[in-house]
Amino acid sequence: MEFTIAQLAEMLGGKIVGDGSVKINNLKKIQDGVEGSISFISNPKYEKYIYSSDASAVIVGEDFEPKKKILPVLIHVKDPYLGFTILLEEYHKFIQFQKTGIEEPSFRSDKAQIGEDVYQGAFSYIGSGTSIGNNVKIYPQVYIGDNVTIGNNTIIHPGAKIYASAKIGKNCVIQSGAVLGSYGFGYAPQTDGSYKDIPQMGNVTLGDFVHIGANSTIDCATMQGDSSDIEEGTKIDNLVHLGHNTSVGKHTVIAALTGVSGSTRIGDYCVIGGQVGFAGHIEIANNTSVGAQSGVLKSSKEGDNLFGTYAMEARSWISSYAVFKKLPEINKRLKELEEKILNLSTV
Amino acid sequence: MEFTIAQLAEMLGGKIVGDGSVKINNLKKIQDGVEGSISFISNPKYEKYIYSSDASAVIVGEDFEPKKKILPVLIHVKDPYLGFTILLEEYHKFIQFQKTGIEEPSFRSDKAQIGEDVYQGAFSYIGSGTSIGNNVKIYPQVYIGDNVTIGNNTIIHPGAKIYASAKIGKNCVIQSGAVLGSYGFGYAPQTDGSYKDIPQMGNVTLGDFVHIGANSTIDCATMQGDSSDIEEGTKIDNLVHLGHNTSVGKHTVIAALTGVSGSTRIGDYCVIGGQVGFAGHIEIANNTSVGAQSGVLKSSKEGDNLFGTYAMEARSWISSYAVFKKLPEINKRLKELEEKILNLSTV
Amino acid sequence: MEFTIAQLAEMLGGKIVGDGSVKINNLKKIQDGVEGSISFISNPKYEKYIYSSDASAVIVGEDFEPKKKILPVLIHVKDPYLGFTILLEEYHKFIQFQKTGIEEPSFRSDKAQIGEDVYQGAFSYIGSGTSIGNNVKIYPQVYIGDNVTIGNNTIIHPGAKIYASAKIGKNCVIQSGAVLGSYGFGYAPQTDGSYKDIPQMGNVTLGDFVHIGANSTIDCATMQGDSSDIEEGTKIDNLVHLGHNTSVGKHTVIAALTGVSGSTRIGDYCVIGGQVGFAGHIEIANNTSVGAQSGVLKSSKEGDNLFGTYAMEARSWISSYAVFKKLPEINKRLKELEEKILNLSTV
Repeated sequence: MEFTIAQLAEMLGGKIVGDGSVKINNLKKIQDGVEGSISFISNPKYEKYIYSSDASAVIVGEDFEPKKKILPVLIHVKDPYLGFTILLEEYHKFIQFQKTGIEEPSFRSDKAQIGEDVYQGAFSYIGSGTSIGNNVKIYPQVYIGDNVTIGNNTIIHPGAKIYASAKIGKNCVIQSGAVLGSYGFGYAPQTDGSYKDIPQMGNVTLGDFVHIGANSTIDCATMQGDSSDIEEGTKIDNLVHLGHNTSVGKHTVIAALTGVSGSTRIGDYCVIGGQVGFAGHIEIANNTSVGAQSGVLKSSKEGDNLFGTYAMEARSWISSYAVFKKLPEINKRLKELEEKILNLSTV
Repeated sequence: MEFTIAQLAEMLGGKIVGDGSVKINNLKKIQDGVEGSISFISNPKYEKYIYSSDASAVIVGEDFEPKKKILPVLIHVKDPYLGFTILLEEYHKFIQFQKTGIEEPSFRSDKAQIGEDVYQGAFSYIGSGTSIGNNVKIYPQVYIGDNVTIGNNTIIHPGAKIYASAKIGKNCVIQSGAVLGSYGFGYAPQTDGSYKDIPQMGNVTLGDFVHIGANSTIDCATMQGDSSDIEEGTKIDNLVHLGHNTSVGKHTVIAALTGVSGSTRIGDYCVIGGQVGFAGHIEIANNTSVGAQSGVLKSSKEGDNLFGTYAMEARSWISSYAVFKKLPEINKRLKELEEKILNLSTV
Repeated sequence: MEFTIAQLAEMLGGKIVGDGSVKINNLKKIQDGVEGSISFISNPKYEKYIYSSDASAVIVGEDFEPKKKILPVLIHVKDPYLGFTILLEEYHKFIQFQKTGIEEPSFRSDKAQIGEDVYQGAFSYIGSGTSIGNNVKIYPQVYIGDNVTIGNNTIIHPGAKIYASAKIGKNCVIQSGAVLGSYGFGYAPQTDGSYKDIPQMGNVTLGDFVHIGANSTIDCATMQGDSSDIEEGTKIDNLVHLGHNTSVGKHTVIAALTGVSGSTRIGDYCVIGGQVGFAGHIEIANNTSVGAQSGVLKSSKEGDNLFGTYAMEARSWISSYAVFKKLPEINKRLKELEEKILNLSTV
């Protein structure tokens, strides 16, 4: 990749201060800037680096004015971070994996339908009745069961496993080792203390632009015709567990190692920290935030900001925790009071 | 699948009220009942749905009497939920994966012994000295090392990995990405602060009817001849970690993301919530319950019901937590008392 | 394996008391000693077993003197546990997997460089530009992307996945299902509440003697040229998540189910318990210990010993928790005091 600063500024709709003909071939953090690289400053904390930076260009805010002489050409934009992200993405598209075709040996049922410009890596498996959209990238050792549908431009990384009947949208990313459609943890206790399995016959559905992290697991719904469902634009981190019949709304993010028990619904635009646990059969309203490591037992109201095990309003938890830290001292003070009162009473 | 209501009633030993010749081809929740479907009511909360349901049949308790006119034929049984589960299971057997034979390419040592009616999916691997029972289903990309034994009717989902020398019972289910026999986390600290590995040479054993969830990991025992051991009927959810030399008794359930440290024993008929952590070298007695996200540091007594980090009796934890929520107020009251007493004392 | 006691004693630099010509073919715990086996006593608690043991040899400390007549031959060494570990390791080398060569079908780019005595299992994949050192063992169904480097003697267990451009040192062990180089959880929030991905283009690097547990996930760094980095001798347990741009120093151990958020650095010689969570962008100093299930929000100082959510000094947490357990009682006592004072004041 090599572009002039003028070309990049045009891409971002930005204004250049300096020589627009300088060539750029690399993206770097401002601290690591070198000749030929472009950086950005969004947080004022990082401004100091620009005065000694060898970067050829830096993306800055509309109002940015250097306080000393600097080397880099400036591109002024409204949101420098967004601008940098756009360039990163373009660069990524440019360098990323563009393979098409089938690597052998691989397995493809003759009852599968395959779109155009698909890549199917070696040792991957595509079951019967499955339909793969255009430009889908299926890396090696991926398993796709029977009757699965996968939308255009979706990328499935090495070794991900998709059980039968899953419906996956367009532009999704399923990372290595993720499992979609495993059987839910549903067992009926018997009178002798043993458990009988409840057959799990539903499926998993993902909307468009959903990302599933490495080694995460999403159980299928219990009943045929039902789905564990993740809606458009939602991003799930690594090692997350979603139980059977769970659903997650649109544009929600869930960080690593979080577990959601069966039949719980998480709404739209939620932000869920890492290692959070949700009880089953509850409803988390839209725009709920949950702090890392919380345990959520009850449904939430729109806009709630929860923390703790069992989760309560984050502000209350923090106040209680501040006193928790002083408990030994409080205990001591209470004893002293009791003695004093005993003395007073017996005077 | 299509059965008459009379046939289903006979299967369940139930009594029909209505026309037994009506045909059923589907199982649905009572809220979702349609013509041709059968539902059940176990919890009275759901009774209301029967009055507007289009289901052709509903399984109900022995004493159930509709308060208004209804459309569905009734099947009266002792336990409607159990009855529905039985039908689900029959249906599941009917529709489920019944493949046999070998898909190519796959790898099978000529020193492996394979039973009858086995399915071996493409890209799966069976090592030397390994013995596979009758009717075992090995999905694509499964790895089974050397000298493994697998009992009849066990199902191993895509990409599960079974290290050498594991012994797996009959009718087990190992889900996608589960790892059985990984090396335990055993390292001897050296005087220079580095760690030397302790070779891990034991194996993993599973009794009959054990289920292992997707992407769970069970480490092998340290010493050759020893086992990390899970007994008959126990169900392990997704993303659970069992360390080296752990053992879990019969008919215990362990929910997702729980970790059990090395050499800990969990007894029979225990119920362990999600994201629980167990210290190493402790003994959890039979019939112990542990609430989600607890941290268990000490051995338990039979029937204990534990909660919290560090776990204590659940009831005590809940009482303490109720006060924890009021700590800021308690702190304030304590200060007021101190002032009052100071005033009283100095009067 | 069969050795004389004299040969084993020489290997350990130990002194024999008894018949050095006796043959040993097995290693056992002292409680399980049988004819032909060797055991050790390190902890005096286990001394009692030696008086009834059928072991042919026992490794003991330099000062050990039996109080009664015993059967086993003794080998006196400075550190019996270390001695036993050395024998275990030799035994392990002897019996362990020594395959070399390629099992077919497997996939190897003709632009990959492969060292001597390499084993490549069936259904494994080696990408273009990748370089594999001598004596590397690649088990079945492993994925190794393009431009990866793997040092001599490293072992990669079945189904582990290594994304493009990873650099892995010598003598590493990557267990089944581990994922190295998955894309980090980096998304730029948009004004409409949706998220735009930030391309993740860096890689993962491991020093020598690093171990990665089963189904653990390590995200790549965000920027090209940057790495998520684990240094020499560090051991990571199963189901651990390391976010993008994390780094872990030398000779640190991290137990199962722990999560480290993006851009956090963990120092050298740290000991991190299971199910711990680290916030992003913090710095954990060398020699920090963190108790299991802690949540660490702030950087630590060298030698800190942390516990709790949010983590504080372990000792303080334990003191507070001791009072937490008494909170209902404290609450009651406080109420009584308030009443007494009210009475006193109104006398």
